[in-house]
Formats: sequence, structure tokens, C-alpha cells
Amino acid sequence: MSNVRTPDPNPGWLSDFALDETRSRVPILYVEAVPVRIDSHGQVEHVGVLLRASPAGTMTRSLVSGRVLHGESLRDALLRNLEKDLGPTAFPQLPVSITPCTVAEYFPLPGVTPLHDPRQHAVSLVYVVPVTGDCAPRHDALELTWLTPEEAVHPRVADEMEGGRGLVVRQALAHAGALPR
Amino acid sequence: MSNVRTPDPNPGWLSDFALDETRSRVPILYVEAVPVRIDSHGQVEHVGVLLRASPAGTMTRSLVSGRVLHGESLRDALLRNLEKDLGPTAFPQLPVSITPCTVAEYFPLPGVTPLHDPRQHAVSLVYVVPVTGDCAPRHDALELTWLTPEEAVHPRVADEMEGGRGLVVRQALAHAGALPR
Amino acid sequence: MSNVRTPDPNPGWLSDFALDETRSRVPILYVEAVPVRIDSHGQVEHVGVLLRASPAGTMTRSLVSGRVLHGESLRDALLRNLEKDLGPTAFPQLPVSITPCTVAEYFPLPGVTPLHDPRQHAVSLVYVVPVTGDCAPRHDALELTWLTPEEAVHPRVADEMEGGRGLVVRQALAHAGALPR
Amino acid sequence: MSNVRTPDPNPGWLSDFALDETRSRVPILYVEAVPVRIDSHGQVEHVGVLLRASPAGTMTRSLVSGRVLHGESLRDALLRNLEKDLGPTAFPQLPVSITPCTVAEYFPLPGVTPLHDPRQHAVSLVYVVPVTGDCAPRHDALELTWLTPEEAVHPRVADEMEGGRGLVVRQALAHAGALPR
Repeated sequence: MSNVRTPDPNPGWLSDFALDETRSRVPILYVEAVPVRIDSHGQVEHVGVLLRASPAGTMTRSLVSGRVLHGESLRDALLRNLEKDLGPTAFPQLPVSITPCTVAEYFPLPGVTPLHDPRQHAVSLVYVVPVTGDCAPRHDALELTWLTPEEAVHPRVADEMEGGRGLVVRQALAHAGALPR
Repeated sequence: MSNVRTPDPNPGWLSDFALDETRSRVPILYVEAVPVRIDSHGQVEHVGVLLRASPAGTMTRSLVSGRVLHGESLRDALLRNLEKDLGPTAFPQLPVSITPCTVAEYFPLPGVTPLHDPRQHAVSLVYVVPVTGDCAPRHDALELTWLTPEEAVHPRVADEMEGGRGLVVRQALAHAGALPR
Repeated sequence: MSNVRTPDPNPGWLSDFALDETRSRVPILYVEAVPVRIDSHGQVEHVGVLLRASPAGTMTRSLVSGRVLHGESLRDALLRNLEKDLGPTAFPQLPVSITPCTVAEYFPLPGVTPLHDPRQHAVSLVYVVPVTGDCAPRHDALELTWLTPEEAVHPRVADEMEGGRGLVVRQALAHAGALPR
Repeated sequence: MSNVRTPDPNPGWLSDFALDETRSRVPILYVEAVPVRIDSHGQVEHVGVLLRASPAGTMTRSLVSGRVLHGESLRDALLRNLEKDLGPTAFPQLPVSITPCTVAEYFPLPGVTPLHDPRQHAVSLVYVVPVTGDCAPRHDALELTWLTPEEAVHPRVADEMEGGRGLVVRQALAHAGALPR
């Protein structure tokens, strides 16, 4: 079924059918980035949150994220998804270590675990990524908002985060030593 | 094609055909454990290495590892694979944090990257796991050998480690502060 | 001035005068432990918080903590302070890695930073430590209370934590994947 | 005895006498940086090693390091010592998290532990720090050499590293996923 796309310049991509089938079989590996603005000492000042329109037309907030493709390294996947969601002039500082700051497990059923994804069982390696350039969200994101840590953990913002990702934001801020008191 | 196995008490398992097909589509998520014996202060004294017979009949050394099944949490996968490879009386101390000490990326082509797996593109979350009980390897492992850190990083041992995992052992020992001088 | 204590079976200890003088000169290194009860999968179920009477007679909550003595290793300091605060039958599981889950910086002036210690500039290496035995607080601690993660991050409890340590508790829970939603 | 320096624009500094006395009383807190050059994906390509002339006139290799002063934050200490050792145009990328990649314990007696410092018991928080600008070593360093990971872990280089810091380099490279095979 993936043959129709041969010769394929990007063989990691799957048809919708193959992807749906695969999602029913194995957990799908993601990388996820919490974009941040830092001061000269490395201290987080702002967190970047994407505003997306869901297929159902409602607005939700989200983080930079995307699948790791077959044959793709984690560093390549992270850079590709940062560029996809933040544009080509964001100038992200990729982490020196590929060990994530936390691992987020999304299960299909809401309410069972703090994080969920109705499409699939996804396991996401999460990184805090400073960006120094201009962000121009493209793809399906409408807007990138820079929030202070206080704003980012506010319950109202957390409630708008897709799939329970407000928890991921708090874990990332804790890792960065930027959880509000 | 997965319908033939319905009703399935263990739906995460896949037929050989479905697994092969899936392996050609997405990176497969693994958990991997470096079993260790520690002293009362938490300092690593020995590293547990499994001796396995490969399908080709040659002997190779390996670590505790296994796929994360669809719908299975990382903690469940880690505990299940520890029990599979070390037996029911190993009494592993699972880590408080599910953030791995390192992430190992295995690609199908040997020589391109330090780690490889001829079957698939695998991404493995690696944990150092103290075990306090008796280990009784089962499954396809023949023997569990406890090596000192010096022995475990010896080039001869590293050469026998499947897929380049000698590097994973050194990363795990570095994390534990147990790299030999 | 430290000569009066010669011959000293425990040379890391300092007279009150020498300690005060030293505190005015350099940051003082501490180790700090967040004791936890975990389930068989390593998931945190309860956090141990100490109730202490301050010299002023008020009650405050605190964590296991203590100075690293001259010539003492971090692992020795961690084990010694766990035994000092939790008693000899707590059976703590010391971490495999001595890399802390977070570093807490306490400055003498309240309000400048989230954490403060009126006595000194202290830098504390923080560890999450599962304990499996019975805890019998001694020393100057009156009681050890086991709180659920939800209880431990409650603002009322956080307000009672000495020196702003409610933040340290949230960082430790974030590290352990146990922050409440 | 520190009164003679009043009014002191930099109160964290100590007289030689006060520093010697303090070193006999408590472990001294350091920050240490392993400078690296990274590619656009964050992968380490080179490690920066300083060549220093020891007081005895012999040449030794070392890392960026220095004391944390009284009242100084870890981030301030890290930035100050990077500038001291690499000059004002190195443009280091300070880490988002102040949690170190490893903690190095130096004891005064050689041979007892892998790391030693004849002057003192020092505890050093170690960070891997990408630098993007030009490094102009000053202070007492003669030269900064950029080594590949393979060169940096070579036994001959490791033997020249002050106080056993070859081990720290290997731990830092392991953290960064850049240990040679």
C-alpha cells in the first residue's frame, strides 16, 4: 500500500491507511519541544505555546511535536518538527544531550491517565528548546504565544492545552528551574 | 490481518507478518535495562550481562530489553521485560523517574551509527536497574554474568555485545558514576 | 580555633564559632532528600515530610537535609542524614546516580529568591529517595507525615514548608512523574 | 580577618589565609564547564581543553572551573568562570537547567578516589556548555585546544588532565551521546 508513493523521496511518511493500521499495533514515537526564551544566564523567561484549530474547529493550545519517521534520528526529527511548527528563522538551540527532560505517555482513553491522544498510544520524548530568532508558525498552527511561566501554568491556560499537556509544561518548567513559587 | 487473533487476551502482541510490516513503517519503541548490583550507598559494584544464542547459533552478550506493547505503560514494559529476562525472583528496584538515563538509537544498517539492529529501526529508553534477588534467566538467555565495571567495559566484552551495546553499557556506567578511571 | 576539639573523632564537625565564620565566607554544601513510598512499578505514592519545631517554637515542615562534612563523600552524607532524620530502620534506597534531580539555592535574604535560609547561603543537592522500612524520626524532628502528591503540593502545606521548600517538593515530584494534574 | 578588605566591592573573595582556613573546614563548591563545539543538530564535534602552567612549572590540561562565591548564584558563577577562562567573546550557551550533568568529588589525597585536588575537598557541579564565538583564554591558561571526542578520551590526553579530570570528560561525553565507540 505504500508502493503507490514509489519512488518516494521521504520514505518515512505513511499513507493514512498504513498510519491508522500502525497506530493500532504499536506505540508511536514522538518528539516534543517546549520552546523557550531565555536570558543571558540560561534562565527561562517565556514559554512558547501554539494555538491550533482542531479538526472539529475548536481552538486548542499545543507544543511543538511530531512523529519520528522510520530511519530518522531523534535529532533530525526534533529539528524538522521545530522548523515545521516555528518556521525557518526560529534558530532553535538543540540540546547537547538527546536524553529528554521527561517522557510523556499519551493513551487513547481520556481520564485513565493524565495525558491522552484520541488517535493513538503515543510516547513522546520531551525537550526544552531555547529559540533565539523570529518564530513564524506555519503548518496548521495559527499563532505562537509567549507566556511567562506564571501564565503558562495558570489553570485556564492548562485547560486549553491539548491532551493534558499543561502537565508537560509544568514538568518542563520544573526541569528548567522555572516553576513559579 | 490482526483480526485473526481476536479475541486476544494480550492485544499488544503482533503476528510475525504484522510485526515485520510495522517494522518497515515506524521506529519501534523499546525499553532496555542495565541490571546492576549496588552496595549500601548505591554505588554500582557489578553489571549484569546476558549471554544469548543468536538465531545463527553464535553467542552474543546483551542487556535486558524488549518492545513496549500497544497500550502498555513504560513502567509495565520495564517490569515485564525484567521478569522475562531475569526471572520472578530478581526483585528489581524500578527507578522513581521514568526519564531514561540515555536513549539508544539502533538503525538497520551496520556501520552507519554506533548502534544497529538488523531487524529494524529501534529507539530504546535505557535504565540502570538495581536487582537485589536471585536472577534466573529464562526465555532465550542462557546465562547472566555479573561483571565488575572494569570487566564490563573491556574491549573484548564490548565486542561480544549485540548491536554495539558496549557503548550503552559505558553510558549507563557514566550515568551511575561507575566508569573505571 | 578548631584546635580545641583535637583529637577529634569526627573532624568534619565545626565549633559554632567556626561554622558561623565559615557561613559568612562560602556557600555551604548540603544534601537534601525527599523521602517517598513507591509502588512495585516505582511510581511515587506518598511523600514524607518532617514536622520540626523551629528554635523560635513555631512548627514548620521540612525535608531530610544536612551539611556535607569536610572529607565526606556525597553518598556518605546522604546516608548519614537519612539515618539522622528517619532513624536506623528506614531502609532508604540510595540512588544509583549521585547526580541530583535538582539543585536548590538558598540565600540569606527572604523574598529575593524563591528559597531562603536565614543562617547562610546554602546550595543543596536534592534526591528523591524511596524508603521501604519504618521511619522513626529523631534528632529535632517531631514527626514524619506521609502525604499524597496532591496533599504535598497543596498551598497550605507549601506555606508551612521551611525556606520555600514547597517548590523543591514540586520539582522532585515533577522529576518522578508524580505531579498532580 | 576579612575586615581588612572592607568596604569590599566583591565580598565573595577571601584573603589567602581565610580561604586556606575555610578549605580545612568544609567542602568547597565549584562549577565546572566542559566547553564544546556542536553542529546544527546539537551533536558534539569538539571538546575544549585548557592548557595551564601549574605553579610547579609543569604543563597540565584542565577544564573551565572556579569557586562559587558567597552570595553568588550558580548561573552567575558559571558565566563568570566561562568568561574568566574563555574570554569575553566565547558566547557560551548556558544550560536551561542548572541541574549538572554530573557531580565531581575531588579529595585531597591522591589515589583514594579517581579525582583529587591537593588543595582541598572540592565538590564540582559539571555542565557541558556549547560555545559559538572565539575563545581567547586569559587568566592563567595558556591555550585552548579543540579536540575531537576520540582525541579527548585518548589515554595520553587523559593522563595530562589535572586531578583525574579525564574521567569528567568521559562522563560529559557520555551525557552528550558523544562517547567514541
